Amino acid sequence: MTNVLLIGANGHMGKEIQLALNNHATLELVAGFDRANDANASFPIYQDLQQIQEKIDVVIDFSHHSLTQKVIDFCLEKKYPLVIATTGISETLYKEITLASQDIPVFYSANFSLGINALIQALQKVTPLLEDDFQIEVIEKHHSRKKDAPSGTALLLADSINDVLTTKKEYIYGRSGTENTNPLNEIGIHAVRGGTIPGEHTILFAGEDEIIEFKHTALSRRIFANGAIKAADFLAKQTPGFYQMANLLQ
Amino acid sequence: MTNVLLIGANGHMGKEIQLALNNHATLELVAGFDRANDANASFPIYQDLQQIQEKIDVVIDFSHHSLTQKVIDFCLEKKYPLVIATTGISETLYKEITLASQDIPVFYSANFSLGINALIQALQKVTPLLEDDFQIEVIEKHHSRKKDAPSGTALLLADSINDVLTTKKEYIYGRSGTENTNPLNEIGIHAVRGGTIPGEHTILFAGEDEIIEFKHTALSRRIFANGAIKAADFLAKQTPGFYQMANLLQ
Amino acid sequence: MTNVLLIGANGHMGKEIQLALNNHATLELVAGFDRANDANASFPIYQDLQQIQEKIDVVIDFSHHSLTQKVIDFCLEKKYPLVIATTGISETLYKEITLASQDIPVFYSANFSLGINALIQALQKVTPLLEDDFQIEVIEKHHSRKKDAPSGTALLLADSINDVLTTKKEYIYGRSGTENTNPLNEIGIHAVRGGTIPGEHTILFAGEDEIIEFKHTALSRRIFANGAIKAADFLAKQTPGFYQMANLLQ
Amino acid sequence: MTNVLLIGANGHMGKEIQLALNNHATLELVAGFDRANDANASFPIYQDLQQIQEKIDVVIDFSHHSLTQKVIDFCLEKKYPLVIATTGISETLYKEITLASQDIPVFYSANFSLGINALIQALQKVTPLLEDDFQIEVIEKHHSRKKDAPSGTALLLADSINDVLTTKKEYIYGRSGTENTNPLNEIGIHAVRGGTIPGEHTILFAGEDEIIEFKHTALSRRIFANGAIKAADFLAKQTPGFYQMANLLQ
Repeated sequence: MTNVLLIGANGHMGKEIQLALNNHATLELVAGFDRANDANASFPIYQDLQQIQEKIDVVIDFSHHSLTQKVIDFCLEKKYPLVIATTGISETLYKEITLASQDIPVFYSANFSLGINALIQALQKVTPLLEDDFQIEVIEKHHSRKKDAPSGTALLLADSINDVLTTKKEYIYGRSGTENTNPLNEIGIHAVRGGTIPGEHTILFAGEDEIIEFKHTALSRRIFANGAIKAADFLAKQTPGFYQMANLLQ
Repeated sequence: MTNVLLIGANGHMGKEIQLALNNHATLELVAGFDRANDANASFPIYQDLQQIQEKIDVVIDFSHHSLTQKVIDFCLEKKYPLVIATTGISETLYKEITLASQDIPVFYSANFSLGINALIQALQKVTPLLEDDFQIEVIEKHHSRKKDAPSGTALLLADSINDVLTTKKEYIYGRSGTENTNPLNEIGIHAVRGGTIPGEHTILFAGEDEIIEFKHTALSRRIFANGAIKAADFLAKQTPGFYQMANLLQ
Repeated sequence: MTNVLLIGANGHMGKEIQLALNNHATLELVAGFDRANDANASFPIYQDLQQIQEKIDVVIDFSHHSLTQKVIDFCLEKKYPLVIATTGISETLYKEITLASQDIPVFYSANFSLGINALIQALQKVTPLLEDDFQIEVIEKHHSRKKDAPSGTALLLADSINDVLTTKKEYIYGRSGTENTNPLNEIGIHAVRGGTIPGEHTILFAGEDEIIEFKHTALSRRIFANGAIKAADFLAKQTPGFYQMANLLQ
Repeated sequence: MTNVLLIGANGHMGKEIQLALNNHATLELVAGFDRANDANASFPIYQDLQQIQEKIDVVIDFSHHSLTQKVIDFCLEKKYPLVIATTGISETLYKEITLASQDIPVFYSANFSLGINALIQALQKVTPLLEDDFQIEVIEKHHSRKKDAPSGTALLLADSINDVLTTKKEYIYGRSGTENTNPLNEIGIHAVRGGTIPGEHTILFAGEDEIIEFKHTALSRRIFANGAIKAADFLAKQTPGFYQMANLLQ
């Protein structure tokens, strides 16, 4: 069995990981880290990383980006492979992650679902074919308590398109007034909010009398837990380096 | 036959009206008004309203809102029933239209399609049932050359909902940043632009683990011409007053 | 507190009811009925209805239609108000339910979600307006293990439309070959199956160059539990009679 | 200029080609073939292929599949490059087309839109990634007068997926009854009909708690004319062989 340390064990996604690793074939949750212990958990949840005594083979971080640097430092010290699944990673942090990957195996993705990552491959396939004749827009829908807009996944999808465009496009986040146009040089990204929607992303290519839509719907957060677990299983066997979902999808 | 004067005869919608009135059972296009004559038209197109000699039973205005006051004055002078189908009518103009309806029959709608107006009735039926538990968002899609955002129809739909809400909501036209919420007191209206999309409007009610969507798709501008023609047919027989699509849908 | 007896306590929906009634303000789960007891449940689960000793104010049945007659007989004997939330109720059973409602309060619906029932009211509002010019189709999507097709909810929606049509329509469940048409006298009902989709229903009105769509998406089974609980809360206070979701939505 | 002979000049698609080739930069319509002449056409429309005197560089066939063999024979005799854009081509005819391509350049596609063909490339990219975990369904929507179901394009899309699947799937065209399942070995293809819908195709990949949809919407038949014209422009410069949309999309 591969021993897992779960950072952010008591959060929404931490609980999903606990559920998904219950009786898992190859991974075992042996320790957690969070602000408080949870008497109901089947493993100890530490409030101090240095007190962890268990043998750890891989770390999954589903906590908050304000904690990421601390987690990276800890994994560098212990030489633990690290799966980073927190959202809202800044450019500065991204550089630190890249730097760390010189010494330990690091797996990072802005979205851990299989579907989103398959979608990215589809988008990068068709974008060069459609670039000259179609305009591109992104619509994302999430629950009403989500505070950041647009979603990290919407930006990930837009960036994936932009990466393969001959002429890069700018992002705008809404339209109002009387002098709007949608020249080929912009991508509108629209953040819809309501109810308990787990996450829906649509990419629209609109051309002369035809429209192509690519849409991903998450029915629950479980898909992100499943992806992170596959990543951990994979990462525990790797040598130091920077790994992404594309490495899993082959 | 009912004789029609068409204001804005050479515009996109003017041409649609011409096509739809070709061999019409009850309406006949006898005169037009626009900046220039069109030798191919089957009727004279005047550049001066006062020079029109034909007997007119009803006027359809599909020109530009900058011309509307002039058209109202002309119809008041001649006592002609007037169908106003231009978009972008300001509050000031709207008051003038209401005023004119004391002396002549006036038909006004921000959207002349049968479908949009049926949709409004559906929205006003369900809004009171869903108001307490669902959040409301509007997404509209139009061609990339449309300069105003959101569309007049998106605002018409949002207003129709607001009219029957116990607690009125504010409109916002996009979201970005890290401190967004969608409390029950706002409706997000999202204007998507691309290609040649004739017009698509979706109203989303998102609640706890369920979503209801109402969507109208226009496949061509013909639907607006058909609605305006039905309105003209209806209006020619009315006494002075203010008429709307609800008067046709009964 | 209103005491609840839950028939089918160990099934998927039984578990949802248990979760939703945990610390409920007005309802308390005091007894259950199922094939086996569950030591983890906070209430006794009987295998014989006659052995239930607890005081019962209302019964919720989320078991299987093969059990419904037995449950009706039991409630008639004890004069318990009965909420029937099982699916696949036959016409024969439906008559028995109606009959029982002469002696006890009975609440029955083919779908307990607030959204589906609001949708029905919207459909019945617009159908008369669109009947002459639009064709109607239904598309439903469910998880791949669902054995019945189309879903009871799809038939409920189609029936709701048919009820208010001047000219009734027949249902067809797919199209293939070279001699298909969709005259105004048929409604196509299409059952899409895949993955873990909890339930999606779309009703399409397609006319000349315009389309109106009404779509309901269930994100989880919780919405059906919530509806059944609201119905139980309501039913416990009623006199004998037949009650439906329309009685709750006012 | 490249001289074009248009077979089926008076049909719906023939008229679209006429419109699109009006003042075209590189192609010129010099002759047509159909049951009757059309005095309004800017070129002669023959009723006998042998009477055509004009110099022809490429032939576009948008007539009926019952005529295709005759058109192939004529092009073989004259050594004219041939774009076959008729629908409903049988397997027997397809073999004849392949055979003809040994002697003349032949371009054939079941769908000439740029969007559908880009979509096929996207589908073939993601299918191998999703094959094991997702079920696949196809939904197509067309106008109510379409007699064949499912559409040729729906079959083209399903075939494109099947071509890259490790384990081939069977097609079914609807579901009803109580013993349905959707094992990984079937693709449901659902033909929705209503109004004047020009054509909409959705491919659904449904997995565990996530759904990916690929959707193409045609707003008019113009897109098929545009594709056939691009194909003709391309084909006029080719040596004998069999060409498809993939040859244009590079």
